[in-house]
Amino acid sequence: MRPHEALAAFLEGELAEVNRLIRVRMSSEHAPRIPEVTAHLVEAGGKRLRPMLTLAAARLCGYGGGYHIHLAATVEFIHTATLLHDDVVDESTQRRGRPTANLLWDNKSSVLVGDYLFARSFQLMTETGNMRVLGILSDASATIAEGEVLQLTAAQDLATGEETYLKVVRGKTAALFAAACEVGGVIAGAEEAQVRALRDYGDALGIAFQIADDLLDYRGGAATGKNIGDDFRERKLTLPLIKAVARADGEERAFWERVIEKGCQQEGDLDHALALLTRHGALEATRRDALDWAARARAALAPLPEHPLRDMLGDIADYVVARFA
Amino acid sequence: MRPHEALAAFLEGELAEVNRLIRVRMSSEHAPRIPEVTAHLVEAGGKRLRPMLTLAAARLCGYGGGYHIHLAATVEFIHTATLLHDDVVDESTQRRGRPTANLLWDNKSSVLVGDYLFARSFQLMTETGNMRVLGILSDASATIAEGEVLQLTAAQDLATGEETYLKVVRGKTAALFAAACEVGGVIAGAEEAQVRALRDYGDALGIAFQIADDLLDYRGGAATGKNIGDDFRERKLTLPLIKAVARADGEERAFWERVIEKGCQQEGDLDHALALLTRHGALEATRRDALDWAARARAALAPLPEHPLRDMLGDIADYVVARFA
Repeated sequence: MRPHEALAAFLEGELAEVNRLIRVRMSSEHAPRIPEVTAHLVEAGGKRLRPMLTLAAARLCGYGGGYHIHLAATVEFIHTATLLHDDVVDESTQRRGRPTANLLWDNKSSVLVGDYLFARSFQLMTETGNMRVLGILSDASATIAEGEVLQLTAAQDLATGEETYLKVVRGKTAALFAAACEVGGVIAGAEEAQVRALRDYGDALGIAFQIADDLLDYRGGAATGKNIGDDFRERKLTLPLIKAVARADGEERAFWERVIEKGCQQEGDLDHALALLTRHGALEATRRDALDWAARARAALAPLPEHPLRDMLGDIADYVVARFA
Repeated sequence: MRPHEALAAFLEGELAEVNRLIRVRMSSEHAPRIPEVTAHLVEAGGKRLRPMLTLAAARLCGYGGGYHIHLAATVEFIHTATLLHDDVVDESTQRRGRPTANLLWDNKSSVLVGDYLFARSFQLMTETGNMRVLGILSDASATIAEGEVLQLTAAQDLATGEETYLKVVRGKTAALFAAACEVGGVIAGAEEAQVRALRDYGDALGIAFQIADDLLDYRGGAATGKNIGDDFRERKLTLPLIKAVARADGEERAFWERVIEKGCQQEGDLDHALALLTRHGALEATRRDALDWAARARAALAPLPEHPLRDMLGDIADYVVARFA
């Protein structure tokens, strides 16, 4: 059993409650189109990784109440809303191996249904009555949006370095992972050192996850539902490219300027890009960075109590980067 | 002095605090593009009608604290975020007489910066520490998104009647007016009958406002920044059209099917539509509806204490429909 499956098995009962709550809350009395749009995303066999982090964190800290279900559903709604708005943003044509919402429907539906899910997530977390949790999740929402905007301005700019990349990744991906873990600890009333450990774990895990994702885009992988080179075609300056650009000679630099900055791509460019990535060891260096962040995630768990869930969270850190191993 | 100017003069000091808070909170350390996109909307001389409602409601109920400033800024951020996402939705080319954000920038920026403002609004209201206020505003956010989605599905369908129109308007416009008023009363700790009165006032005011807006689209008006017939060209089935369609004979119905349902419009169609609206008294009937809702808004104020602000809110109700008088 793979690590996320082991975690899902351990949390089976609570995960079923989360799924039930998600289905109830994504319905709309007045606008029946809403579940039509969300269903294919919410039901599409997403791994529920983020909500599982919340459930695991709460349980690991000895939580005995029921609000971790609300928070797990909140986190999944925020994630799904972000995917819907990303579809508008990226003009991507495939998501989890299925057509994206904006091709099935249109940009308008993606924007508005995403907004609906954001509002629903906000209702769900308000029901917990826990002000600190609300602060954490509203801060995370702002950080996510900032990361996405920063990505827009930085994406096609060859001057973008690893520091900016990390800032984008912390925003668009790690902020929600970190908040998902942290609110689990907070709702359980865990001591500050443990809450901090959960947050650090989620932050490092999210960064490892995103770096692995950006690597997969050039290496491919089983069942990723992604085509090799999507990011290249969308002219996204992700970590492998940033590393290759940093080591480029004059001729290579001219190539990157043409295909990324000017967006003038032709037959064979992806193959040439892959050759340059290999020549400079950029894929291998990116892989080492991902492994390093996964190790940091595992190490962050030390202050938490010994528990099967702590081991499983450690395994999840290895798993998110092992997808391409 | 026109009623909204009188209200602004009365609330001058607090409105300045709201504007200061808005400027501080729309900035972004990591993504400087954000205030570039929002500035032209937030600073574009919007009337600040919604935040003034919050300030007035709180003061009218004797509030002595400072959180009505946060709530007023919250309401304006939600409104601005909605405008940004509407720009994506409507492919509109003019908003408050200026180019829309999505022409100045692009759809991606509109979506993501709107998300950022939603998240910021959520942070602001969380700072009040008032759970009931959070519930009201999160419910309003969900209702707004539902109303917008319902409008998408109903807009080009000639079977849409006045009941569905009212549901859309309650969602996309009146929900925020009602919440803006209600949270002012709640933060002031007003008694339930007064909170209810504020909510009813905001609901009726929002409906009157939107009906007047939809009428203006066919009648034009000074300084509206709208072109006559925008809704017609976008094939939006608003109240004037709904009334005309209800009274259409066979030939007229065929016309509406062609221009609205099929979207096949040609030179002279807008003039013909205006002639049909006049023939059936649809504009006059729409105007009477708007006046009726304005009267309901004024009447809803009765349970509130006698106060210059109560009179001003009553005048605002007349004003939103008098824009076309």
